[in-house]
Amino acid sequence: MADLDVTTLHASLTDRALNSMNFLNEISHHYPDAISLAAGRPTEEFFDLDDVPRYLELFAAHLRDRGLDEPAVRRTILQYGRTKGIVHELVARNLAVDEDIHVDPEAIVVTAGCQEAMLLTLRALRADATDVLLAISPAYVGITGAARVVDLPVLPVPDVDDLLTVVKGARADGLRPRGFYVMPDFANPSGLSMDLPTRHRLLEIAAAEGLLLLEDNPYGLFPAAGVDRLPTLKALDTERRVVYLGSFAKTGLPGARVGYVVADQTVSSGGLFADELSKLKSMVTVNTSPIAQAVIGGKLLDCDFSLTAANQREREIYAGNLQTVACHLASAFPQGEVTWTVPSGGFFVVITVPFAVDDELLTTSAQEYGVLWTPMAHFYESDTPVNSLRISCSGATGPQLEAALDRLTALIRDRLS
Amino acid sequence: MADLDVTTLHASLTDRALNSMNFLNEISHHYPDAISLAAGRPTEEFFDLDDVPRYLELFAAHLRDRGLDEPAVRRTILQYGRTKGIVHELVARNLAVDEDIHVDPEAIVVTAGCQEAMLLTLRALRADATDVLLAISPAYVGITGAARVVDLPVLPVPDVDDLLTVVKGARADGLRPRGFYVMPDFANPSGLSMDLPTRHRLLEIAAAEGLLLLEDNPYGLFPAAGVDRLPTLKALDTERRVVYLGSFAKTGLPGARVGYVVADQTVSSGGLFADELSKLKSMVTVNTSPIAQAVIGGKLLDCDFSLTAANQREREIYAGNLQTVACHLASAFPQGEVTWTVPSGGFFVVITVPFAVDDELLTTSAQEYGVLWTPMAHFYESDTPVNSLRISCSGATGPQLEAALDRLTALIRDRLS
Repeated sequence: MADLDVTTLHASLTDRALNSMNFLNEISHHYPDAISLAAGRPTEEFFDLDDVPRYLELFAAHLRDRGLDEPAVRRTILQYGRTKGIVHELVARNLAVDEDIHVDPEAIVVTAGCQEAMLLTLRALRADATDVLLAISPAYVGITGAARVVDLPVLPVPDVDDLLTVVKGARADGLRPRGFYVMPDFANPSGLSMDLPTRHRLLEIAAAEGLLLLEDNPYGLFPAAGVDRLPTLKALDTERRVVYLGSFAKTGLPGARVGYVVADQTVSSGGLFADELSKLKSMVTVNTSPIAQAVIGGKLLDCDFSLTAANQREREIYAGNLQTVACHLASAFPQGEVTWTVPSGGFFVVITVPFAVDDELLTTSAQEYGVLWTPMAHFYESDTPVNSLRISCSGATGPQLEAALDRLTALIRDRLS
Repeated sequence: MADLDVTTLHASLTDRALNSMNFLNEISHHYPDAISLAAGRPTEEFFDLDDVPRYLELFAAHLRDRGLDEPAVRRTILQYGRTKGIVHELVARNLAVDEDIHVDPEAIVVTAGCQEAMLLTLRALRADATDVLLAISPAYVGITGAARVVDLPVLPVPDVDDLLTVVKGARADGLRPRGFYVMPDFANPSGLSMDLPTRHRLLEIAAAEGLLLLEDNPYGLFPAAGVDRLPTLKALDTERRVVYLGSFAKTGLPGARVGYVVADQTVSSGGLFADELSKLKSMVTVNTSPIAQAVIGGKLLDCDFSLTAANQREREIYAGNLQTVACHLASAFPQGEVTWTVPSGGFFVVITVPFAVDDELLTTSAQEYGVLWTPMAHFYESDTPVNSLRISCSGATGPQLEAALDRLTALIRDRLS
């Protein structure tokens, strides 16, 4: 007999969202020789172990410049630290430089990756069983999973045009929509972006309906070749309607696991929403590793707060890969029976095929074709079959990307015939 | 009007536990010149920034020794990583060397500090509104706060002798006790330890009642002078009754924010409890910073897995400070109107006085006497006034500790007269 009965454990553990993530993580371990077009990991092309001590030294020098003596420098980096973080001022400067977002550093909570930022935000917003989260559909598995962990149901919103209908429907059912999760720039998994009028309209709906917008922006710095960036919702937000979820995993260094949330909303009990999130953080991770923060802080200092500049080479790789994928698919499937998105940036292309795309097909693909990708079904709330798959253009490059696309093309052709 | 009404946010945010932690954090920022006997932080005496790159290099060399090529070494430390961690095998060796605990590394989840280990464990164990956590009282604020975050009520257990009564009472009330949280070695905040017969008895009760024991052990490596360590519950656990919550904050480096949980219980759905905690972790922090893990991994390699050996100097400081405190208090209060604990190790001494000890007195102490400590009331579930305070012997040393004790003595004397 097992020591623990799974039915006595939290319901999220048997939920699709958590097991999706687990399945997707595990399959890459099971087939280490398969080329991965699955994970949205940044390129490893420019990884350099020497960067870590270099960034640490830059951050330590910055602390000395600010008047800290050596014991204080050591304490800041090596001791327990401020719950809201030690690089909040540097993050605020980065947001001003890269995003034209201007916020009080006190409104920033530095987190153990953007995932913790999502978890804290959803935990704060889920007060009782009538609370629901609205999320653009298809949605990043991490937001759905975090919602499950805090017992917050997710109502899918296929398009901004559907938002009002979903809000009104939820309210008619006695539910309280707490926020609407969106990724306006080069979204995961759809690859789609919102145009500027849609961004303005969304902010208007949020104001009219008293909705918070949870804006997640991990890919904004990576537009495709020739594409100009649009302002984020937070940059357009004049009424503190937007909670901005920030990540340094793609633009800083994934191994630091440093993210943040901008939560400048005022709270009736006094202080900012960031202060409430900080209280929760003290019970989730106490504070984000100051060593890891110092690494990211050093990188921000190194690039004079412009991660756009620091990621020029990466941007070129991703933009080139998006073109490679589009060319490859166009020459492989000229007949129209297979279609794909041509995103204006980011990591992801969605391919739609005239047959079922499920975990079984993925396993076959890994085992027999040596290529990994993600069934789009993992990003939807319902169990309805979805005939499409997501590939990521961030990991494999050059001949490896070509080989992966050849393998994927072979799989699709075999299924078509 | 505020943007967010606090009554629409999660109840934990207005709970005593989360606001305690916040108050205690904030007061040290408000009175930076006060000497702190409040925080249970490790000594900064031997902090060295150069240790960080040195440990990183040791860990990288270890990966090379295991056959990883340079891209794989860089990927392991700088990329997203395994959800359960990358130093689990090193942690297992450390547990064998320091604690005579022998576990499969797959039963270990490396976490963003021990706080995340607590949160994941409590989240997994809280399935519905009948679930309750039992906790030794007084209890560490972090366990109470983590329980609040996952809506898990805490029933205080003043002594192991009371455990059966509390369990039976809870069951009679229709509640389901999911586990009993204890810190058997040099507990925070009481300073007390369990003797060996009590440890055996506790394991017997756990087996008879089908209870999990959640053992937290941040201070075990710091016995007082001349004191021999006792085996942990996990070392005595032959039936997988104990979930072991591990911290490197006091023995490794607090700025790494690396902890872990040993969860070797089998689960009816297959796999270990650690695998379930890992699924939750993927939605809380994705994975613990591999850079931070590499720092701790390097330290474990550096000391040949004996943190006991690595902390010899720290142990001497803490043991010396415990003696200094005992001597100081004995000479200051020879009459018996003030009493204090003489713990057999760890960081904490509890002083009991014949007057109310509350946050107001702490504020006076910080402002007028220049010394910080912690009102014991923060560690109890009920609002009953508690006439005692906790001081920590880990932060201040030598003349600074003497000065802090003089200030505290002056405060107590002024209140006595």
